[in-house]
Formats: sequence, structure tokens, C-alpha cells
Amino acid sequence: MSFIELKREVYEANMELEHRKLVTYTFGNVSQVDRAKGVVAIKPSGIPYEQLKVDDIVIVDLENSIVEGRYNPSSDTKTHTYLYRHWHEIGGITHTHSTYATAWSQAQIAIPCLGTTHADYVYGEIPCAPVMTEQLIAGDYEEETGAQIINCFGERSPIESPMVIVAGHAPFTWGESAAKSVYHAVLLEEIAKMAYLAKTLQPNIGSLKQALVDKHYLRKHGKDAYYGQNN
Amino acid sequence: MSFIELKREVYEANMELEHRKLVTYTFGNVSQVDRAKGVVAIKPSGIPYEQLKVDDIVIVDLENSIVEGRYNPSSDTKTHTYLYRHWHEIGGITHTHSTYATAWSQAQIAIPCLGTTHADYVYGEIPCAPVMTEQLIAGDYEEETGAQIINCFGERSPIESPMVIVAGHAPFTWGESAAKSVYHAVLLEEIAKMAYLAKTLQPNIGSLKQALVDKHYLRKHGKDAYYGQNN
Amino acid sequence: MSFIELKREVYEANMELEHRKLVTYTFGNVSQVDRAKGVVAIKPSGIPYEQLKVDDIVIVDLENSIVEGRYNPSSDTKTHTYLYRHWHEIGGITHTHSTYATAWSQAQIAIPCLGTTHADYVYGEIPCAPVMTEQLIAGDYEEETGAQIINCFGERSPIESPMVIVAGHAPFTWGESAAKSVYHAVLLEEIAKMAYLAKTLQPNIGSLKQALVDKHYLRKHGKDAYYGQNN
Amino acid sequence: MSFIELKREVYEANMELEHRKLVTYTFGNVSQVDRAKGVVAIKPSGIPYEQLKVDDIVIVDLENSIVEGRYNPSSDTKTHTYLYRHWHEIGGITHTHSTYATAWSQAQIAIPCLGTTHADYVYGEIPCAPVMTEQLIAGDYEEETGAQIINCFGERSPIESPMVIVAGHAPFTWGESAAKSVYHAVLLEEIAKMAYLAKTLQPNIGSLKQALVDKHYLRKHGKDAYYGQNN
Repeated sequence: MSFIELKREVYEANMELEHRKLVTYTFGNVSQVDRAKGVVAIKPSGIPYEQLKVDDIVIVDLENSIVEGRYNPSSDTKTHTYLYRHWHEIGGITHTHSTYATAWSQAQIAIPCLGTTHADYVYGEIPCAPVMTEQLIAGDYEEETGAQIINCFGERSPIESPMVIVAGHAPFTWGESAAKSVYHAVLLEEIAKMAYLAKTLQPNIGSLKQALVDKHYLRKHGKDAYYGQNN
Repeated sequence: MSFIELKREVYEANMELEHRKLVTYTFGNVSQVDRAKGVVAIKPSGIPYEQLKVDDIVIVDLENSIVEGRYNPSSDTKTHTYLYRHWHEIGGITHTHSTYATAWSQAQIAIPCLGTTHADYVYGEIPCAPVMTEQLIAGDYEEETGAQIINCFGERSPIESPMVIVAGHAPFTWGESAAKSVYHAVLLEEIAKMAYLAKTLQPNIGSLKQALVDKHYLRKHGKDAYYGQNN
Repeated sequence: MSFIELKREVYEANMELEHRKLVTYTFGNVSQVDRAKGVVAIKPSGIPYEQLKVDDIVIVDLENSIVEGRYNPSSDTKTHTYLYRHWHEIGGITHTHSTYATAWSQAQIAIPCLGTTHADYVYGEIPCAPVMTEQLIAGDYEEETGAQIINCFGERSPIESPMVIVAGHAPFTWGESAAKSVYHAVLLEEIAKMAYLAKTLQPNIGSLKQALVDKHYLRKHGKDAYYGQNN
Repeated sequence: MSFIELKREVYEANMELEHRKLVTYTFGNVSQVDRAKGVVAIKPSGIPYEQLKVDDIVIVDLENSIVEGRYNPSSDTKTHTYLYRHWHEIGGITHTHSTYATAWSQAQIAIPCLGTTHADYVYGEIPCAPVMTEQLIAGDYEEETGAQIINCFGERSPIESPMVIVAGHAPFTWGESAAKSVYHAVLLEEIAKMAYLAKTLQPNIGSLKQALVDKHYLRKHGKDAYYGQNN
């Protein structure tokens, strides 16, 4: 049983993260799930991108046991698998410490929707999962990070906001594939930068008018979308 | 009847936008009008710049019907054609979500003239078209975006400010050709960045003295201009 | 009588400005004086850097008459020659609209000495020449820009601060040669960026302690300097 | 007795500093100590990186006397040797004027731990060594810079924070080798940028919860670390 295609997609998504300059050294990791086979391919822990090879990608099952690979998987693996187990809609996950998104995480503020660049991709604010209690931190930390994210979404669909920032930490993004989750990581960083600039220029600015949020999100998403070539 | 030359100019202007790093993924679009033929060439919707070819450029008439091309035109096409129909002085239009200009849009503040870099290209502030009413958003949104821009200029000539920011959205720039509209998009981003920095450094700074605005604008524009080689 | 060597040095200094990313399009110009011959070599007006050739550099005398060259000299030529006529210590001048230095110009604030990066190159604040009166603007504007700079230095030597920002406009820097003036333009932009960041982080920060200003400036400049290899 | 291997490591670490865009012109210097031989290899003073060769690296003893090399060593040599003499745990030192770290130095504020990017590498705040008294500045300045750093650490281990900022000046970082000290210089600049952005976005933000600091620092460092492949 071979995972070569899955590994290649995850390898390429990880390298795209490097190519888009969203990571410094070994920061960041991308994974993709194969739900039929019940496995996740993920970057190994602490391997620099310039040395990474397709075959270094680690295969784990959804309970975090290594299925194939000579390296330890990313130390954030349990956060990835937790999200895959709870959100069946998602196929790939990206974790970065990209500069502006991480600054919002450190400021511990959800990123408000201030414009159509945001509304084109995210319906409503980008939530900020709160800092864990001491008890949770002392427990199974990476697993609990997944739980914090799921809890802060509540009934909200992960499709409406394919991204979250974790207070005091950094962002996670997702999508139908590893590649799509990286795409959302790039967009998040740009959205976070624009929101930073707008907020420091005009601290009192409120969120975008709801009718405009609806208009932009729905012209790109849903059954009446008319952006692009596929509709 | 062939539009090959028009398509090539619009293709090259779109690629210049990418080259100047003013776009992320498929954000942004450039068009040019051929008034003799009554047509507009514009980027297709949702096609990444790295895949774009000359022949992918779409030709529409001024009422937005496709004349030639296998793709849907940009979802912002109606804004472009609205501007061409109302401003006969302009030949090309660029729309981007460039970072600093979009931040001003999100802050919903017209960009004041704070220095000669601004006054060299724009006579007076760069206007901020207001957010539409719910009623207009629910109507023909992209057409109404054009109307918001025209309305906010009132009697002011589009030559005096070859650029506008739309509140909650992003900038549009124009010029005598597609290439010139991209040139103005690059200048707007630089002007917007300088104004952001000056305003956050010194929030009370007022606009540039009118005599200096006149001096710089008129040494580059109008019958007594003495900048460059063409006078 | 040939000016080929002088033209080449000025050409290379102009291209270095482009290489260091201090200019957008045709912004900026560099000149160098040959005091023995009584001439100044300067960039032609409005020629893009990618098209500039050695032979396009214009030679003018110190009263601004063209001595050699097929193009109009920079529209800022009179500012350059005014400075050369009044400051015999300087051999080259650079004018840019570099982003952070121009932001300080627009904020109309002299750049305070906040750290040793500044003190290593400039002794005391980087002065801000005030906006001209309406009367001066209406006069010989570029000549008066030179006069504003000279006046704001008063008795202070142009060697102590090889740079100035002009309120509402942008910086000028100088040095013993065109190359050295570009070197100072690069340093000014970095100093201006650091000062912007420090001031927005801590608005109440005062200037660097005088003893530290003296220490850093004098370890690089003057008879007891011990930095580098030439002492 | 040859120092070729030591010189090569120091040369490569210096070039990495340039490659990571942490230096402008001749700013910055990296050294490494060979404790068995009692010598330090360090960048020569004022030599541009583009001209630097392996053989230009200067060898000094721990009392700053030149052992080998045709150039003067960095003017900051005495700070390096002071730190090597007092902290036996460290093997390499980097000094830069990197933009964001230097801005914090100029603001004269220790960099608080605001997130896990910081906690992954530094246990607690990054200290800010105070500006020296006039008396110390007038003394053996570079030696006293070392003393200010050692004094501000007090009982704290240099391993817990492999970096410091010196008020009014700039950062120093260290590690087990020259290469590792450069690695920390890169991380410091990124941490300083994120902290700048978070603080200007939300000035009231406090430090990261201690349990989270402990968790992140200890998952990468110490006997129970589980990040990477070496445990």
C-alpha cells in the first residue's frame, strides 16, 4: 500500500509555504488527510524546508500512530488530527507563524471583517480561539489546541471561515486539500496585514456593512456565485 | 475583425500588475477601451496571472456583452464599462487590492495630499467613494460601484485624480491606456504607504499648502509644465 | 574636452539608487560636481532608470546652463547647483522620495537621534527644512529649495548631517562624491525607518544621551576615529 | 598552528547575516571562540560583505590582541571577548543593527513575551541593557557594553535568553557557535517585528500566560523536549 501521491501533494504544499515566504526556518507545517485510507500525511518535525524531500513526509493514522516514515511527525500533529476527526468537511490543514496573522494572535483579538478582500474568502470575523487554562495546557496540549479551535467555532461551519488564530500562538487554516489550506494561509496573511493597517490608521473603524459582506461572499461562494469560470 | 493588438496591450498591462507585486493570486484586473470599435478588452475572471495568455483576454462591448473570447470577463467588468461610458477622457482602467491603498479604503478615509509625491500626480485628495446603501448593493452591484465613483467625483475631472478608493473595498485607477492605469496603480500604492506612515507618525498633520500643490502639479501637467523631455 | 568619466560615475550612482530600491519609476536624481571644470553632471529629467545610458547624463555649469547633453537636466537641477555653490565641502548630491524619509518630510518633523545607527553617520538630528512661503514658491522654486536647505543649516556644517528632509517634499543627501551621496541616501532611509518604528512604539522617547552621540560619531569620524581600516 | 576551519565558519556565519538581509553595508559582525586555543575569530572592521573573504577574518586572543590577520578586527571586538570571558556556555556571538530589534533598543523597552514564537526560543522577556552612564561611556566603551549586558542578566542564564538589546544601540545574540548566534539574530528580528505589530495594535496586551511560556519553551528545550528528531 503506497502513499506516494499523498506524500507528494503534502510535500508540494509545504514547499509552497516556503515559496510564499510565510515561514522562517522550520516554523509551519502542512498536512492532508486521505479519508478512505484513514491516514494523514504531514511534515516531519524540525526539518528545514531546504532539506525536505517527498519521502520525508510522515504518514500517521487519525489517532496519531506512525504508519510510514522514518521521522517524527510535526509536534503539532495532534492538533491536525483532532480537527480532521471533528470536521469532516476539511481535507488539508496549514499551520504557520506568519507575521501579521501571528501579531493578531498575540494581540488576542479576532480579525474583524473590514473590507471585501476579507469578505471574498471569509464570512464574518476570523475567530480568535482563547488562551487555554493552566489545566488544559498541562494536559495533552496539542490535542487541546484542536479542541479550543473546535469549541470557539461552536455551530459555525469551518467552511465559512477556513482560518482561525489561536490567542498567544498563531494561525491555522484549512481547505479541501493541503494546497487549498496553503492558499488560505497566504490570504489570511494579506487580510491580517490590511486589517492591521486600517486599524492603526483609524482605530474606531467598525466592521463592514452586512449587506456588503453577503454580496461579496456570495458572489464567490454558494449556488448563485458568478465569479470565475466554473459556474 | 481582429482585436489582437488591443488584447496584447491589456495582457501586458495585467502582467505588469503582477510584476510590480500589486496582486495576490487572481486579485485585480486591467482593461482598455477601443472607442472607435466600441469595445473593451479585459482580464477573464479568476484566471491566475501565471497561466494568463494573450488570447485569454475577453472582448466585451460597452454594454457588457461578450464580443470575443472563451472565458467569462472579470466580475468587475460592469464597473469598468460604466466608467468608460461616463468618462470619455479615459482609455484604461486598473482595479487592485494593493495593500496600503486597500487599508485606506477599509479605514474609509480619503487620502489627503501630504506631500509633493502625491501632488506630482494627483491634484488634491484621492477621493473615497462611500459604502453603498443596502438597496444599491442588492441591485446591480458592479454597475453601482461605477456610479458611486462617478457621483463622488461630481464636477471634478477624472484627470485631476486618476485614482479613487472605494470605501470597504479597494482602489480603481485609470489613464489614457491600460499601461498608464497600471502606472497610476503603482503610484497610488506608494502614495498610500507614505500617507499611512506620515499619519501614524503625526496624526495632526494637515494637507500640503495649496501653493505647493499647485506648483508641483503644474510643473508636471498642463501647458506650462517643464518636467521631462516633452515640452 | 570630455566628461566621460564624470558621466560614468553619475550614471553608476543613479543606477545604484535603483538597485537599492530607493526609487519608483523616474523619482530621484543624483549629481556630481567637478569643481576644477566648474560643471555638474546630473540625471536627465523623466528618463526611466531601465532606459538610462551613460551618455544620457547631462552636463550643466554651476549657473544651470547646459554644457553637453541632448536631454533636459533633472527639474531639480537648480537645487543641486545652489547647494554646490554654497557648500564647497560637498561633491555629490542625491535626491529621492524614499518611503520612510519622505514620510518624515510629510509629517514635517526633524528626525531625532534615537540610537547609535543614527549617531554613527549624523551628528545630531536630521534637520527638516520648513515649507516655503507662498512668495518663495511662486518665485524660482527649485533655487529656493536650495536656499531653504542652506538656511535651515545656519552655521551647522553639512558634514555633520550629510542629509536633510524638506517639509512636505522629500530628502536630499550629499557627500564627497555622487556614490557617497547615494550611500547616505540608503542610510537615511534605514535611519528613518528605525526612528518611525521606535516613535510609534514609544512616543515619549527622548533623544540619545549626548555622551553616546559623541562617542559613536567620533569613533567613526574625526582625528581620533578607530573604526575601519584607514586610521 | 592554523585557524582555517574556525575562520571559514565565521566567514560563512557573516555571509549568512548578509544573505538573511539583516545588515546594511558594513553594519554587523559575527565571531566564534575556540576555547581550547584561547582565540576568537571575528569579522574585520568596515569591510563590506561583498568583498569579504575567508582569509580576511581576524584572529584575536581573549584579551583582544591580534594573533593572525592583516586587518583591524571589528570595533566591537572587546564586547565579544568580554562576553566570552564571562559566559563560558557560549561559543558564538552576532551583533547586528537589524531594523525591528534596533527599534526596540531605541525605544529602550525589553521585548515582552507575547506569544509562542517567542517562547519557543527565549524563556521570558528579552532584556534591555540600560544606557551607560557618562563615566562608563568615557571609559573603555566597547568593554563596558559587555559589562552592561552581563550586569543586566544578573543570575539569569544566557541560555534562557540567547539575545539582548542594548538601549539606544542594537541587539547582540549568541549560541553554541557562530552559526547558531546568526540563527538567533534571525529569530530575534522576527520576534521583534511580531511584538511591534501586536503592541501597536493593542497597547495594553500583557505577557503570555506563564504556563504557556513553560509549555512551549520546555517542549523544545531541556530533558523532556519532544520537538524535532533528536530526542
